[in-house]
Amino acid sequence: MSAPLFGGPVHSGCVYLVGAGPGDPGLLTLRAAEILARADLVLFDRLVNPAILDQASRARLCAVGKEGGRPCRNRQHRIQQMMIAAAHRGLVVVRLKGGDPFVFGRGGEEALALVQARIPFEVVPGVSSFYSVPAAAGIPVTHRGLSTAFAVFTGHEAEFGSSGIPWDLAARIPTAIFLMGVRRLPQIVEELVRHGRDPATPVAVIARGTRKDQEERTGNLKDIVERSRGLQAPATIVVGEVVRLGAVLHASQISAALAGMPRGAV
Amino acid sequence: MSAPLFGGPVHSGCVYLVGAGPGDPGLLTLRAAEILARADLVLFDRLVNPAILDQASRARLCAVGKEGGRPCRNRQHRIQQMMIAAAHRGLVVVRLKGGDPFVFGRGGEEALALVQARIPFEVVPGVSSFYSVPAAAGIPVTHRGLSTAFAVFTGHEAEFGSSGIPWDLAARIPTAIFLMGVRRLPQIVEELVRHGRDPATPVAVIARGTRKDQEERTGNLKDIVERSRGLQAPATIVVGEVVRLGAVLHASQISAALAGMPRGAV
Repeated sequence: MSAPLFGGPVHSGCVYLVGAGPGDPGLLTLRAAEILARADLVLFDRLVNPAILDQASRARLCAVGKEGGRPCRNRQHRIQQMMIAAAHRGLVVVRLKGGDPFVFGRGGEEALALVQARIPFEVVPGVSSFYSVPAAAGIPVTHRGLSTAFAVFTGHEAEFGSSGIPWDLAARIPTAIFLMGVRRLPQIVEELVRHGRDPATPVAVIARGTRKDQEERTGNLKDIVERSRGLQAPATIVVGEVVRLGAVLHASQISAALAGMPRGAV
Repeated sequence: MSAPLFGGPVHSGCVYLVGAGPGDPGLLTLRAAEILARADLVLFDRLVNPAILDQASRARLCAVGKEGGRPCRNRQHRIQQMMIAAAHRGLVVVRLKGGDPFVFGRGGEEALALVQARIPFEVVPGVSSFYSVPAAAGIPVTHRGLSTAFAVFTGHEAEFGSSGIPWDLAARIPTAIFLMGVRRLPQIVEELVRHGRDPATPVAVIARGTRKDQEERTGNLKDIVERSRGLQAPATIVVGEVVRLGAVLHASQISAALAGMPRGAV
């Protein structure tokens, strides 16, 4: 069987479900840049860094998708209809999504719609935010001796209460990562402690990760809510001992000060 | 505070801890390609696809790291000494690792060694294998209604028995991903079922994911061991309902047959 490799020609009348990475244009993949350069139409999530769209020099650009955190079913349906209609007209269509399309990106739903419409498509993985954003704060999601397993949770307010998050799992996995708005932080902290996580466990909250205006706060389950005041959603929340490494590794990474010049044009 | 953005100039006397992605050269990031092009020395994991090394046209290339799955402490120490010595000599040093350096990549350990040696460094995230390899088999690790959380586990034989894997968590998380040799599969299946996972749960085992010779087997916890006979390690093992999507999505992705020509030169 031939594997769907992430290379080769760019086809018209096709849809490319492309991951844009966490925000920094340098973290776009070569394949994504190649496809964007040949795209006729780019349907991009509002959260995608505008600098990345510069790669799509000949395409019509169209902002779609969720606003204010929650996607609406109607809007999702409209996006799918737009992709399908454009591909039927023979265009090279890119559906550009933050991070990776198959990691909390609704890429599966869009791919199923394309299957149903008999539109050929390719999924182009991107650098997912849930580990690259912590990396930008010097935090590895795994570290020998501290964490050999991690879990990633998301959830919108609607699904949050009931079966949304298996809190007992989140309380026990060495590294727990939450992709949620900062305003869910009090509930996350409360549930983790209630399910037995040590209140002294380190926590980092990172907003706008990998972008020039990245902002982060660190603390522990006892004080992170207080320390995170004023941070804007969406955020990446990391709970676990690996957070301690951030203090050492973040400061030591090459910084703008060391380079003596602005780094990148994010 | 200035965030360590993944762009900007490439410095000599520095070490870049770079993720090479899952295997397909198209999944290298723009930043990684830029740094490789300017590198003087590339210390690469043996698992990195040789086609990716073509990006490092002026560098001395040096294969390092684990052979046969298990890194040896001495070897790890030697790699760190090589990086540090070369950076002290003013070289642009790249430590090129499969997937992402901070996701089971020992990047944290290498970064700590660089901090101790006062060598400036930058971590360049890569597309991690644990979700891009399933994507290449048409499997999203999350899917609305099927899975809003996933966990990733690894473990070498030595640490496997005792506290290595929290099996009860692995048995209950909607999508469980194991980065382990195929020969661990019988133990994975046994432990998951013993901890209450439904034996009918779908499982996919993918070897050499995203490469031209990618091979995958799907089944369920009852029959996957039998179905996976003959597959070579290392493999990505996905357990959960999302595996069912692979049958639909994989076949529909643009294939070599559709394109009428070989896709990529992986």
